[in-house]
Amino acid sequence: MSDVMKDMKHSFRDYQPKHFLWEVSENGRVGTVRLNRPERKNPLTFESYAELRDLFRDLVYASDIRSIVLTGAGGNFSSGGDVFEIIEPLTRMAMPDLLAFTRMTGDLVKAMKKCPQPIVAAVDGICMGAGAILAMASDMRLATPETKTAFLFTRVGLAGADMGACGILPRIIGQGRAAELLFTGRSMNADEGQAWGFFNALHAQDVVEAEAAKLAHSLADGPWFAHTMTKTMLNQEWAMGIEEMIESEAQAQAICMATKDFRRAFEAFAEKRKPVFEGD
Amino acid sequence: MSDVMKDMKHSFRDYQPKHFLWEVSENGRVGTVRLNRPERKNPLTFESYAELRDLFRDLVYASDIRSIVLTGAGGNFSSGGDVFEIIEPLTRMAMPDLLAFTRMTGDLVKAMKKCPQPIVAAVDGICMGAGAILAMASDMRLATPETKTAFLFTRVGLAGADMGACGILPRIIGQGRAAELLFTGRSMNADEGQAWGFFNALHAQDVVEAEAAKLAHSLADGPWFAHTMTKTMLNQEWAMGIEEMIESEAQAQAICMATKDFRRAFEAFAEKRKPVFEGD
Amino acid sequence: MSDVMKDMKHSFRDYQPKHFLWEVSENGRVGTVRLNRPERKNPLTFESYAELRDLFRDLVYASDIRSIVLTGAGGNFSSGGDVFEIIEPLTRMAMPDLLAFTRMTGDLVKAMKKCPQPIVAAVDGICMGAGAILAMASDMRLATPETKTAFLFTRVGLAGADMGACGILPRIIGQGRAAELLFTGRSMNADEGQAWGFFNALHAQDVVEAEAAKLAHSLADGPWFAHTMTKTMLNQEWAMGIEEMIESEAQAQAICMATKDFRRAFEAFAEKRKPVFEGD
Repeated sequence: MSDVMKDMKHSFRDYQPKHFLWEVSENGRVGTVRLNRPERKNPLTFESYAELRDLFRDLVYASDIRSIVLTGAGGNFSSGGDVFEIIEPLTRMAMPDLLAFTRMTGDLVKAMKKCPQPIVAAVDGICMGAGAILAMASDMRLATPETKTAFLFTRVGLAGADMGACGILPRIIGQGRAAELLFTGRSMNADEGQAWGFFNALHAQDVVEAEAAKLAHSLADGPWFAHTMTKTMLNQEWAMGIEEMIESEAQAQAICMATKDFRRAFEAFAEKRKPVFEGD
Repeated sequence: MSDVMKDMKHSFRDYQPKHFLWEVSENGRVGTVRLNRPERKNPLTFESYAELRDLFRDLVYASDIRSIVLTGAGGNFSSGGDVFEIIEPLTRMAMPDLLAFTRMTGDLVKAMKKCPQPIVAAVDGICMGAGAILAMASDMRLATPETKTAFLFTRVGLAGADMGACGILPRIIGQGRAAELLFTGRSMNADEGQAWGFFNALHAQDVVEAEAAKLAHSLADGPWFAHTMTKTMLNQEWAMGIEEMIESEAQAQAICMATKDFRRAFEAFAEKRKPVFEGD
Repeated sequence: MSDVMKDMKHSFRDYQPKHFLWEVSENGRVGTVRLNRPERKNPLTFESYAELRDLFRDLVYASDIRSIVLTGAGGNFSSGGDVFEIIEPLTRMAMPDLLAFTRMTGDLVKAMKKCPQPIVAAVDGICMGAGAILAMASDMRLATPETKTAFLFTRVGLAGADMGACGILPRIIGQGRAAELLFTGRSMNADEGQAWGFFNALHAQDVVEAEAAKLAHSLADGPWFAHTMTKTMLNQEWAMGIEEMIESEAQAQAICMATKDFRRAFEAFAEKRKPVFEGD
C-alpha cells in the first residue's frame, strides 16, 4: 500500500464499540462482531443498529481487517429488534421518523454488502427478525443443528419487506420458499436451512464459531484483494443482463490480473509452495 | 376503510363466474377458485382464461377477500390449454390474433401477480401446460404425492417461453432445472417439486385442499394489509439492484409501520393475547 | 428455409477445428465438441478459447446442427486455463492485453449463450476453472458420480468474477452456495452438484456421454426452432421485471405459434402419431 493510501486507512485493532463486542485476531486480520446481550438473546436497539452501520461503513478504510465473523453471545445469534425498545416507540412515530428508521436499518444491510471484507455468520439458537436479516446479509453462513431462523416481521403486523428481504432471500433459497417464510413468519429449522442453501454447513454448538473463524482466516490468508472483488461482483451483478455481467467481470478480473498477488500465486504454484499474499 | 374508499370497493360474496367455480368462506375472507371440468381434467379455454384474468384484476377492489385458494375439481389441478378448443384454432390464426391470445394469457399471470391477495395453489394429479403456469404464478403451492407437473409447451411444437415461464420458473427452482423442464417438457414428480422448492409442502389427497385453506385463512386472519405489501415487494424487486431493493423496502415497511395494525400487534403482544387485524 | 436464407447458412459437417475435436451425428443434427488433450486433462489455451468462441459464434448460421454436446476426452471434462500456457504469460501482460484476454474468454460464454442450439454438457472427472465455467454456461449438465467441479480462480490469486460466474452461478445453485464456491475455490462433489441443481442428473462413466447425446438428439428431433426461442428467452429475461418478461414471452410464443411446426405438432397429436418437425 502506498503512503498516500495509508493516510486514508486506519487500523481497527483498538476499535471499541459501545453496543456490541469487537475482537481482533492475533494476526490482526479477522475481526469478530459479537452481539452481546445474552440475557435477552442479543436483540438489536436503535443504538446497536447505528453503531453496526457505522462499523461496516468504516471497514472500507481498514488497513488491517480482511474478513469478518458475525456472531452472538450465549448460544443465540440475535432475537432481532427489541419489542419494547424498538417496536413500541415505532408504533408512536410520525412518518418521517419511521422512514428515517427503516432507511437506517437498510443502511446497515447496504454497509454489510459494500464493505470489502467477506462476512461469515456463525449462527446458533435464535436467529430472528432483524437477526435473520443480518445472517441473510452476510456472505456465508454456518449454523448449528439447534438454530431456528424466522423472518417474523408479520408477527408484529409488518410486511416481509424489511431491509431487502423480499429481494435478497429469494436469490438464496428460491422464490417459493422465501414467499412462505416471509408471508407466514414461520421458523426455518437448521436442516431446512442447509437443504435450501441458506446455511453453507451445520456444525456442533461447541465448534461453529471456531469453524467460522477458520473459514474467515482462510479468506484473510488468501488473495484477499481478489476476494474483495468477488464480493463486489456478487452484489454488483444482481440486476444485470448476461452481456453486462460478462463485460463487468472482464474488467474486474483484468484488475485482479494486474496485481502482484496474481504473480505471487503463480510463482508459489510453480515452486510448489504456499503463496503469501500482500493485497497489492 | 373510509366511506370514499368503500365506493371504490365491493364484495365478492355473490360473484358468479361462468367458467369455473367460486366459493367464499363463511367469514367472507377466503375465496376459492376451482377449475371445474373434471371429466377433461380441468382444461383452460379462451373463455376461462379471460374470466380468470377479469377476476384477478377485479380482486384489487375486493372489500372482503383477503386470500385465495386456487384448485381443481375431481383430483386434478389442470391439464392446461385444451388441444381441440385452444390449440387447433390457434394453428389457423393470423399473427395479430396470436399475439392477442398470448397477451391475454400473459395478462392472467400479470393479474395474479398484481392482485393484493396471496394465492395458495392446492395441486393434485395433473398440473400441466397452462395449469403448471397457474401453479407457478401462485404465491405458495401445496401438492399431493400424486401430482405430476409439466411445462409441456414443447410437446405441441412451442417454446417454453409461455406466460413468463422462462423468467419466473428459474427463480423458483434454479436456472438449470428450469431449463430442463422447459426444453424437454418432462414431468416433474411431487418429490422433485418439493426438493427443488416448487412445492412448499406435500399433503395427502384428502387433506391438501384443507391445508391450503388453513394457510389461506391464517394469512387472512393475520396482518393482511402488510401481506399485500409483502406480495407487492416480492414481485416488484425482481429486477432491482440491491441498493434499490433496500430503499424500496424502507418505504414499503414505513408504510406498514404507519398502520394501526402495527400498533394492534404490539398491544396484543404486550397483553399476551392474539391480535385482531383490521387492515387499516 | 428460403433460398435467400440458404445463402446465409452453411453446413458444419466438414468443419475441422485445430484445437478440439468436432463430430457430427450421422443424421447431421447433433454436433459434439470434445476437448482433447487428455494427458493434461483437457486444459484450455489461448488458441482453444478463440477457436471455441468462433465455433459458437458461427453456429448461429448452421444449416444443419440443432443441438450440441460438450464433453472432454479421457475421463475428464477440463482442467481449465493451463497454468504454464495461460497463467504465466498473463502475469507479465500489460493492462490492455489483460482486458483483451478476459473479454475474449467472456466472449466464449456470450457465444455459448447466443448460439441457437441448446448445449448439453457431459461432465466427468475434473471440471475446474474455465472448465467449470464451460459447464456452467451450457444449458443442461449431465455428470458422473466421480465428477469434481471447482471454480478455483481464487487458488491462483484471482477473483471468482470470471466469465460471468458471479452473476450466472448464483442463479443456478443459489447465492449462498455460489458465494462459498467462488470465495473458497473448493470442489463441489457430484452429489452436491445434483442436489443443488448444477447437474440435471448423474450417470455412470460409461454412459454419461450417450445420455447427453440422447438428450441432444431428442431436442434436435423435437421442435427445434421453438427450442431456439426457449434458449433465447431463458437468457434474455435475466434482468427483466415481471411485466416485461410476460410481454416478451407473449411476442416470443406468438412467433412460435406462427410456425408450421406448431400445426405439424397439432396434426400429429390429432392423428396419434409422432410429429416430424422441419424448423419453419
